[in-house]
Amino acid sequence: MESHYVLSLIFRRARKEDVPAIVAMLADDHLGAGREGDPGDERYLAAFEHIDANPRDELIVAEQDGKVVGTMQLTYLAGLSRLGAERCQIEAVRVAAATRGQGLGGKMITWAVDRARARGCAMVQLTSDRSRPEAHRFYDTLGFTASHVGYKLNLG
Amino acid sequence: MESHYVLSLIFRRARKEDVPAIVAMLADDHLGAGREGDPGDERYLAAFEHIDANPRDELIVAEQDGKVVGTMQLTYLAGLSRLGAERCQIEAVRVAAATRGQGLGGKMITWAVDRARARGCAMVQLTSDRSRPEAHRFYDTLGFTASHVGYKLNLG
Repeated sequence: MESHYVLSLIFRRARKEDVPAIVAMLADDHLGAGREGDPGDERYLAAFEHIDANPRDELIVAEQDGKVVGTMQLTYLAGLSRLGAERCQIEAVRVAAATRGQGLGGKMITWAVDRARARGCAMVQLTSDRSRPEAHRFYDTLGFTASHVGYKLNLG
Repeated sequence: MESHYVLSLIFRRARKEDVPAIVAMLADDHLGAGREGDPGDERYLAAFEHIDANPRDELIVAEQDGKVVGTMQLTYLAGLSRLGAERCQIEAVRVAAATRGQGLGGKMITWAVDRARARGCAMVQLTSDRSRPEAHRFYDTLGFTASHVGYKLNLG
């Protein structure tokens, strides 16, 4: 006889008190490690307020058994192209180290795609660093097409 | 003795009356041709109003001797990453067919980068379709790094 431990998993808008956990996930990464500061830095809270106040931004967290274990930011982009279609852009996708390999990332992206479709978006788009081949296989599996080259210019 | 024709060239926020010219440029392209509608379609005007009302969006036109010859859309993205740095995303860059090969695209992107820097953005980002190798050389020349893979998922 087996015991079944049912984990609760919810996706919701981030709250102010989630910011340190989100920043910790952004920093816990081979790319993020060198560019993030102290999770309590007040600039993160200011940025959170800015995101939270904008109706076109949704900072999302995945909460499993009361603990924040994943994050992503959705931005709904207006544009003239394609008869003025709205696009959903996904940025800053992270899963907590202890929770990786359990399919959470796929659930998050699938949830985001469903949310964008329900809103009437014509497209979901994101970019992924070339140094993350495992992420690329992941997006391919989810039905995304690697049709574009993503360019960045740092102004820092 | 040479004659010098000094062309006036300005970059400015698009106005409602520019919308048909912008849509015509979006459509005059091997990728855009199949996905745009009539430039007078009211959905374009509705999308323009939506963009124009958002302080984080700037739909820009290049006007040469009173004629709209180029367009691009700048969106200022808020995020927690990099101490809450703002990014400038450039989308829907087009130069009118009759004006191509005169360096206008480079002037537009350079203007956008300067504008993003003046605003305090930490980064400028854009994606370019893999089927536009000439655009890729162009962004390389302007100092951009092709560090990312750009994924799209059509929901249409």
